[in-house]
Amino acid sequence: MSTILKSYVEDRWFTPESGFADIPSAIDGRVVARASTKGLDFVAALRHAREVGGPALRALTFHERAGMLKAIAVYLNERKEELYQIAFDTGATRRDNWIDIDGGIGTLFAYASRGKKELPSERFVIEGETEPLSKAGTFVARHILTPLIGVAVHINAFNFPCWGMLEKLAPTILAGVPVITKPATATAYVAEACVRMIIESGILPKGALQFIAGSTGDLLDHLTGQDVVSFTGSADTSEKLRNHPAISRNAVRFIAERDSLNAAVLGPDAGPGTPEFDIFVKEVAREMTVKAGQKCTAIRRVLVPRAQEETVTEALKAALAKAVPGNPRLDETRMGALASRAQREAVVEAIEELRSEAEIAFGRVDIPDGEGAFFAPVLLRCDEPLKANKVHSVEAFGPVSTLMPYDTLDEAVELVKKGEGSLVASVYTYDADVADALIFGIAPYHGRVLVLDRDCAKESTGHGSPLPGLVHGGPGRAGGGEEMGGLRGVFHYMQRTALQGSPDRIAQITRRWTKGAAAPVTPEHPFKRNYEALKIGETVQTPSRTVGLEDIEHFAHFTGDKFYAHMDEEAASANPFFPGRVAHGYLILSFAAGLFVDPAPGPLLANYGLENLRFLKPVSPGDSMRVRLTVKDKRAARSPEYGEVRWDVEVFNQNDETVARYDLLTMSARTAA
Amino acid sequence: MSTILKSYVEDRWFTPESGFADIPSAIDGRVVARASTKGLDFVAALRHAREVGGPALRALTFHERAGMLKAIAVYLNERKEELYQIAFDTGATRRDNWIDIDGGIGTLFAYASRGKKELPSERFVIEGETEPLSKAGTFVARHILTPLIGVAVHINAFNFPCWGMLEKLAPTILAGVPVITKPATATAYVAEACVRMIIESGILPKGALQFIAGSTGDLLDHLTGQDVVSFTGSADTSEKLRNHPAISRNAVRFIAERDSLNAAVLGPDAGPGTPEFDIFVKEVAREMTVKAGQKCTAIRRVLVPRAQEETVTEALKAALAKAVPGNPRLDETRMGALASRAQREAVVEAIEELRSEAEIAFGRVDIPDGEGAFFAPVLLRCDEPLKANKVHSVEAFGPVSTLMPYDTLDEAVELVKKGEGSLVASVYTYDADVADALIFGIAPYHGRVLVLDRDCAKESTGHGSPLPGLVHGGPGRAGGGEEMGGLRGVFHYMQRTALQGSPDRIAQITRRWTKGAAAPVTPEHPFKRNYEALKIGETVQTPSRTVGLEDIEHFAHFTGDKFYAHMDEEAASANPFFPGRVAHGYLILSFAAGLFVDPAPGPLLANYGLENLRFLKPVSPGDSMRVRLTVKDKRAARSPEYGEVRWDVEVFNQNDETVARYDLLTMSARTAA
Repeated sequence: MSTILKSYVEDRWFTPESGFADIPSAIDGRVVARASTKGLDFVAALRHAREVGGPALRALTFHERAGMLKAIAVYLNERKEELYQIAFDTGATRRDNWIDIDGGIGTLFAYASRGKKELPSERFVIEGETEPLSKAGTFVARHILTPLIGVAVHINAFNFPCWGMLEKLAPTILAGVPVITKPATATAYVAEACVRMIIESGILPKGALQFIAGSTGDLLDHLTGQDVVSFTGSADTSEKLRNHPAISRNAVRFIAERDSLNAAVLGPDAGPGTPEFDIFVKEVAREMTVKAGQKCTAIRRVLVPRAQEETVTEALKAALAKAVPGNPRLDETRMGALASRAQREAVVEAIEELRSEAEIAFGRVDIPDGEGAFFAPVLLRCDEPLKANKVHSVEAFGPVSTLMPYDTLDEAVELVKKGEGSLVASVYTYDADVADALIFGIAPYHGRVLVLDRDCAKESTGHGSPLPGLVHGGPGRAGGGEEMGGLRGVFHYMQRTALQGSPDRIAQITRRWTKGAAAPVTPEHPFKRNYEALKIGETVQTPSRTVGLEDIEHFAHFTGDKFYAHMDEEAASANPFFPGRVAHGYLILSFAAGLFVDPAPGPLLANYGLENLRFLKPVSPGDSMRVRLTVKDKRAARSPEYGEVRWDVEVFNQNDETVARYDLLTMSARTAA
Repeated sequence: MSTILKSYVEDRWFTPESGFADIPSAIDGRVVARASTKGLDFVAALRHAREVGGPALRALTFHERAGMLKAIAVYLNERKEELYQIAFDTGATRRDNWIDIDGGIGTLFAYASRGKKELPSERFVIEGETEPLSKAGTFVARHILTPLIGVAVHINAFNFPCWGMLEKLAPTILAGVPVITKPATATAYVAEACVRMIIESGILPKGALQFIAGSTGDLLDHLTGQDVVSFTGSADTSEKLRNHPAISRNAVRFIAERDSLNAAVLGPDAGPGTPEFDIFVKEVAREMTVKAGQKCTAIRRVLVPRAQEETVTEALKAALAKAVPGNPRLDETRMGALASRAQREAVVEAIEELRSEAEIAFGRVDIPDGEGAFFAPVLLRCDEPLKANKVHSVEAFGPVSTLMPYDTLDEAVELVKKGEGSLVASVYTYDADVADALIFGIAPYHGRVLVLDRDCAKESTGHGSPLPGLVHGGPGRAGGGEEMGGLRGVFHYMQRTALQGSPDRIAQITRRWTKGAAAPVTPEHPFKRNYEALKIGETVQTPSRTVGLEDIEHFAHFTGDKFYAHMDEEAASANPFFPGRVAHGYLILSFAAGLFVDPAPGPLLANYGLENLRFLKPVSPGDSMRVRLTVKDKRAARSPEYGEVRWDVEVFNQNDETVARYDLLTMSARTAA
């Protein structure tokens, strides 16, 4: 008996009644699930996301959304064994499922953490510094990012039903945009189980997540310029979606991650006997067999110095001989099945195409008996790869790679480029010049490049692992999209807007003080005010003090900093930056603190750092100095007991010239709840 | 007699022999130029850019490319009067030409300056911080940006033949990517004159700039995933280009700036008699008449509180009555002609379409006698704009705007959104709450938003002016593209790549030291070495010194910083961050300098700043401290006599725990040439 997969739309589970597609097990071919979206109201789904999910998410701060991601991650983590059990039928081994399930949960954790650390407790982001736009400073600009007022439609590939869904979901929810997610039908039962858990958890607000098990019907016809489509899959499907009339007409943001013939390049220095040679062989064999080679990031092209062609072939043969496909449910199985027999047919067809340019060096195009979709690794070899095309363009999405020799480093770079854009490439060398030549030669063709060597191999996450903090996506054939990459992936779901106006207005709207905005001096020293009571722009103007030659001498002897610019009039005068002996920069900082610090215990708890310090004009003996200190920005800290306050500090001399400027970072106590 | 426009391809001027399109003057209809690309070899143009222009540009550093942009700007600036004289035939007045010609030259200057200040003297850019990827720290990553190995195809609109070309050219050349630029045929003679000057100047390397006067032939058929198309023009043409098979199949980067019904919103507080009311009327009238309204950023929709509808109508009528189109060559002319009679026909057609929802409040659909393309301003008025569609979607690309009333702020936001994405909107209010509600309501639909009020109006560059430092482009109907925005516009022509490896390898490739990379101590103090001699990673390890209670007391009395955490054991112990009395942060900084500073005159000239300082662990009386100082990064300064050196500084206590960490910025002398 098979399960009818349900969609989740308008906060209800929708059970289709007809139009089913059968989903067979990759292990034994029995039908494990049936999917259909016949009768599903896609317009209602979009409306629900726009009218219910979007407003609910946008009402939350980044920190609140990050908190939800973390809670979902914890919830799933406690139930992941259930997902493992369901996912074996996709052909995935326990190790494969670890990548998919734990990898997906890990991405949620990673975005939760970045959201808390790197985003403000706000609903928008300030990007970059204030742009001065006028001479007198009354007209300025600043860029902000706000969530799109639309829906993110995520269309995922069959190979990673959990990770593929969650790596798109995490940055989108963090951005504040509701999601309609559609898994590939072949493994939709795993995605459905995962979504079911998320919905059960009750963590997300209504309308934030909808799920479509089956085809997308007329969903795309109703997209607008505030929506985003993020697609992972084949170039053919990608192209169809990209040119869909509504997407094209309304300039719907379209992120694509598609075909990619990723390369691994063995450096000329990394001959047999070097650690890099062994690392290379191990990595290629691993990438060919993990997920039975069904990874967008798998190594498809294996580039080696011509002199090493035979040695590498033999080493890979030995390694691949150990990879015998077997029942993924068994712990001892190192390699599972392809996702379906249809997928296996596609792989066999692709190999046949590749054989017009390459010969089989290991393995056979062998269809084993039985109803499962098992397929053993095949290593091809192409001896004249510069003249070949298919080995650089036909992606056999299974345990299939092509070995190809190169004669010079330039030729290696040319071969990699013939892939016309890939997600990732890896380079195996311990030679700095080789690394430099290869990396700068191929970087423009890749979203990620790694250099694997004896220093990092042990801790390396490997060629095939996209990571939440790094961009995932590649140019050209790989689709030109970019996902993850830390906050970059969040910003794909937000609109960047340049905001122009007076400094006062820009400070008010961005909730951050900017030079030229009002800086009212309050009667009470702001160090005596709690975090909550501090207002952006509130200012201290200190009295002035003189910096004497005796202060400089004293400071020099006390600290040991007897740099000639402070101690020797003649030598100092010869320095291009100083008129003669000048005060130490650290003396200015220290005296500035002496001028503005309030000694008694109070809400200001600690000065934990300082940023963007510039000494702009020397202070000579006899000059005086005074300080302006203004509340620039406030941020919730990780503890509820205090908040982070950023102060804009400017030190002036007796002529009101700025001698130093910096941001002072403090912790200030919050009012006890 | 008319001029045959030449194209500039393969570093030769190409003169077509047949297939001409006549280009009439906007003033009197006489043919001023003829254009054709019949016989032009577009494949050769692409090859030349890829094989000659690209390698030549990529061999230069950002600073060298910035220097070329500045030299071109200076060269054009000295010859701009010639361009003004040619451009009058486009219908543009002197003021209009100032926007186009001086605006374009200004954009070159702006990118030259940003390139020098904000980019390194390198061929690639490091983006963001090192990403730690492993527990022991042997595997890390960093993002870099490298120029695409392709061609930028710029397709420009007729309204700004200079600015439109130069605002795309500047960031592209700075990125290191060769350009093939194609102006709109209607005003191509101005672009040709400008390109002719650039070529004559001999500043750009061969192949860096090619120019196509006329249609693009089969140019687009041969684009690859390393190329970029940047288009400004109509939504129809944009859509055709975007879905071109080569562009779609190869995921060619496509930047579009197309139709945009930009709004201006008068706040409910800004009634007659307020400065904002007057600013609003002046700005709307100005935007309608500058360039005869032929600006992508012009105000098309004029939103006013319903109570002000009549007053605003009357005020605009009075202002527009003064805008009489006339011969743009005459200094007294305030408004010129449309670019062509064909353009005027399109405007008349659009007005007829708008009249199905709006009535004419000012002006007439009046075709004056004569062969020119003159057309006087038309103000439409739509009383039920929430029910209307055309007034939000039909762009009459001339001196035409539609006035529409709103009842509530929410309704104003809804009306703005009905434009479905615009380049810019402006808001006229002196009320903080009104500004906040409007800005956050409409920001996701715009690339730029400005708040005009009494504080900034005098220095404001106005609703219609894109600026080099701010993003230009909008979502949805406006095309979803983004241009300029400072370095953002440069990065559209570069590939972002996550680079993974050991800290040593990442430091070597990025030419920047990163924690975990080798930090060899050299026998000679690096402060004694010239800029050129300093090696990334070179390190000083100082001896250690003790920080006594008497030091803290002494420092407090000397500087005046008697904060209780330094002075009062009991109060300090009650602070959540301190174990008891602790040393001042500035004392630690000062003592650190005392430990590493070399007092004698030498190549190290000055400490000009400090960044990313964090105090990570308190220093208690009796603790000792020592410093590690490592060359992190070197940058050419603006003077050839010294360079900027960034040092990674880490202060440790007696248990080797980090107590403070920061980047120290110094100027170091270069070896005399």
